[in-house]
Amino acid sequence: MIILGIDPGLAIVGFGVIEKGKYKSEVIDYGVIRTPKEDTLPVRLEKIYKGMCELINKYKPEHVALEELFFNTNSTTAIAVAEARGVILLACIHNNLKLFEYTPLQIKQALTSNGRADKQQVQFMVKAILKLQAIPKPDDAADGLAVALCHSQTNLLLSGTDIH
Amino acid sequence: MIILGIDPGLAIVGFGVIEKGKYKSEVIDYGVIRTPKEDTLPVRLEKIYKGMCELINKYKPEHVALEELFFNTNSTTAIAVAEARGVILLACIHNNLKLFEYTPLQIKQALTSNGRADKQQVQFMVKAILKLQAIPKPDDAADGLAVALCHSQTNLLLSGTDIH
Repeated sequence: MIILGIDPGLAIVGFGVIEKGKYKSEVIDYGVIRTPKEDTLPVRLEKIYKGMCELINKYKPEHVALEELFFNTNSTTAIAVAEARGVILLACIHNNLKLFEYTPLQIKQALTSNGRADKQQVQFMVKAILKLQAIPKPDDAADGLAVALCHSQTNLLLSGTDIH
Repeated sequence: MIILGIDPGLAIVGFGVIEKGKYKSEVIDYGVIRTPKEDTLPVRLEKIYKGMCELINKYKPEHVALEELFFNTNSTTAIAVAEARGVILLACIHNNLKLFEYTPLQIKQALTSNGRADKQQVQFMVKAILKLQAIPKPDDAADGLAVALCHSQTNLLLSGTDIH
């Protein structure tokens, strides 16, 4: 089963594509969709929607796993990420994909068995589990792989929020 | 010129359609797009996107005016509204519409000449300007008409944020 993991954002959407086999998961691709800040908001949202549709058409995932959005102190950023997340979810449902959501804690727990693990520990485990030569760059791409791996390692019936 | 005014939301999107003539503006339609809370988030976003496309196809507006999103104390609501706003903006750009944004203060100022006017005063002016028999219901529909009227009364080159 192909899983597309997404780390939502307005300036950078991180993605990771993995194939979940019977005994292990293998990396297929990872990277980012970038939108230039010179573009207006609707144009950036349109680029994210289009980029998502291209990824879905290229890799034909069965499941999409997203990192759940939490509020932090930077409200303006949170609003922008939420707007981007809206069009990401729309692209998925327009392509009839099943969507799953995980909190940062669930992702850390699944990859490192420690809900308080730091970013470096999570990235190290992404590299180790997928037998990569180096930690994927940029961080957003590694985060996309992390949420995809979290989904692949989680019992779908018990964890994760099926938001389809 | 046909103007579509939108009051963004996840549960209810308010809309108002007006025709701006040389000397006055006339109402064409108003109402709401509702999404049931029993539906999952992606399904609700898809209904909003579809509803927006239907409105655009039906009334063929040249401009769309939106109320700008401000943070309040209810962060969860703000995130949900922002996700809805993302797909509303996407529907507009997918239909090649020009988008304009106004703050609540700009809307109140344009309709009542008082940036601190309350909701009742704004609704009274919507009714008066458009020569309606009663104040449009629900409030979200009146808010949609208010932002459309704000756009029709504002010098496009000086005010409002062209976010297209």
